[in-house]
Amino acid sequence: MKNIKHLAIVGATGAVGQEVCAILAERQIAPNRVSLLASARSNARKMVLNGVEIAVQELNENSFQSVDFAIFSAGAERSRVYAPIAVQAGAVVIDNSSAFRMDENVPLVVPEINGDDVKGHRGIIAVPNCSAIILCMAVWPLHRLNPVRRLVVSTYQAASGAGAAAMEELRTQTEEVLAGRLAVPRVFPHPIAFNLFSHNTPVGEDGYNGEERKMIEESRKIMHAPGLAMTATCVRVPVFRAHSESINLTFERPMKPEEAREILRAAPGIVVVDDVEGGRFPMPIDASGRDDVLVGRIRQDVSQPDGRGLDLFVSGDQLRKGAALTAVQILELL
Amino acid sequence: MKNIKHLAIVGATGAVGQEVCAILAERQIAPNRVSLLASARSNARKMVLNGVEIAVQELNENSFQSVDFAIFSAGAERSRVYAPIAVQAGAVVIDNSSAFRMDENVPLVVPEINGDDVKGHRGIIAVPNCSAIILCMAVWPLHRLNPVRRLVVSTYQAASGAGAAAMEELRTQTEEVLAGRLAVPRVFPHPIAFNLFSHNTPVGEDGYNGEERKMIEESRKIMHAPGLAMTATCVRVPVFRAHSESINLTFERPMKPEEAREILRAAPGIVVVDDVEGGRFPMPIDASGRDDVLVGRIRQDVSQPDGRGLDLFVSGDQLRKGAALTAVQILELL
Repeated sequence: MKNIKHLAIVGATGAVGQEVCAILAERQIAPNRVSLLASARSNARKMVLNGVEIAVQELNENSFQSVDFAIFSAGAERSRVYAPIAVQAGAVVIDNSSAFRMDENVPLVVPEINGDDVKGHRGIIAVPNCSAIILCMAVWPLHRLNPVRRLVVSTYQAASGAGAAAMEELRTQTEEVLAGRLAVPRVFPHPIAFNLFSHNTPVGEDGYNGEERKMIEESRKIMHAPGLAMTATCVRVPVFRAHSESINLTFERPMKPEEAREILRAAPGIVVVDDVEGGRFPMPIDASGRDDVLVGRIRQDVSQPDGRGLDLFVSGDQLRKGAALTAVQILELL
Repeated sequence: MKNIKHLAIVGATGAVGQEVCAILAERQIAPNRVSLLASARSNARKMVLNGVEIAVQELNENSFQSVDFAIFSAGAERSRVYAPIAVQAGAVVIDNSSAFRMDENVPLVVPEINGDDVKGHRGIIAVPNCSAIILCMAVWPLHRLNPVRRLVVSTYQAASGAGAAAMEELRTQTEEVLAGRLAVPRVFPHPIAFNLFSHNTPVGEDGYNGEERKMIEESRKIMHAPGLAMTATCVRVPVFRAHSESINLTFERPMKPEEAREILRAAPGIVVVDDVEGGRFPMPIDASGRDDVLVGRIRQDVSQPDGRGLDLFVSGDQLRKGAALTAVQILELL
């Protein structure tokens, strides 16, 4: 990793961009040169990376001269415009947006699962949707030994998935409600303080919203399981930065909870938190700021008497494993 | 209803007890005499019912002289001790606790579903668990026309289910966290501010917690569906007083979303909130204070290609339909 000559971080001032900078420092990844790029709004703002103060520059068509690697975390629209420009300039792009994820020429990678897919890249590697990453982290170690035939997931998604402004809205709106004032939504379409709502992506003709479709399609692509039968219900909850998911699985063959617990204990990036006596299971406040995805409530699904069903509950940091950490891990793979 | 001579409300000062009083006034149910009973702590406190101020009395063995009907909302332990005493004294008990729900001699009633079961009572009628009521309200209208063969539910349960002190803890703890102080849990075992956790009932040997077992067993009893295959994951979220549930159904025969929507629109106690264009679906803040259970996100489950699967999302007021309203409706039935 000491050989990166020039790394560009696009969307450096956003929630994910800031986390990318923090993780680079933690993992002692020190490129010779770093360009922090953002919209005009953040131009000339200063950020500290690896103890060095760097001025944020405005993203434009000339931002990628001499760049080797570029991590994009600035939304799908900006990726669609600037990722091809970066590739043209000779950079390898690691894209946190949804712009290229389902493009068959773009690997969609979670290093612990399908790191080898990186090899087939043509300049762009996509980081999956945060909910899909957290789901696949927990499901893949089981699936590779005993294929999952059907998956039903309901999510409890943090505000961070909608960016730093959404996290701030959760904070200020909660203050307003506690002061007896009305919750006025600005970033989200509905009040988030002491409330929850169906994920705010458009609902298609099939009744699924954008987030649910991403979870389904991307999980199949990441795990190389095109035929996986899966349904998802995505819900936003008043939590700052860790997503949780309630997962119901049907395997090809019977799977005992003890077996699943053992497999998951040995899996990279997973911590089993399943303390029945102490009443401690995965929680967003425990997952926040951690690299590992927490998995617990591992139990035989009583609705599948043939022993092929398991229920799980997981929590994972949306900004870290759900985005920034996975992007940096892909950089390390390269 | 004008003929109730003497009604006792046990646990009158609790979250559900207060709601019972409010609903009696709303529905203009004015018994000749009302005894408000609570623990010694609330003795001599005054409450207003139907515009009349009534002193709260300490619950004891002599509280049920001349009482015709008693609504208990003071927890399972108190019901176990005092409900038989009330029945002995000649009262009919409507019990909001879990004490007698699975007793085969005790009807477990949601008036819109199995009101006729009231007829078989032997002095005690049980009000189901709040999550089971809200689930069955949405599922029963579909199930009676096309039997549900398997049900997977994940809940998003409000603080109110743990009582008034838990609601207060959500408020004060959130203030603490916003002020930068540590969340110190007192009522709940874990922080509830900006967090969520697996329902705080003990986990049994099968890995299910008490709330999940209640949902499964009680739903079968309410809907007279002893063979219903069902799994549940119960989660507490930082919301004040309405529970939400993500429900995945497998029917005996195919069921189209339009058909389900039509059936639910005609069902008593249900309001379909499924505005795809406007992006409006069931939310706790909309369900709070309402009698109806809100149902939306009604869609064909793509993981069941035979058309036998549906996904739903519901929100219902935990204190009203989940407890107090159902108790008063049972009183009206009697």
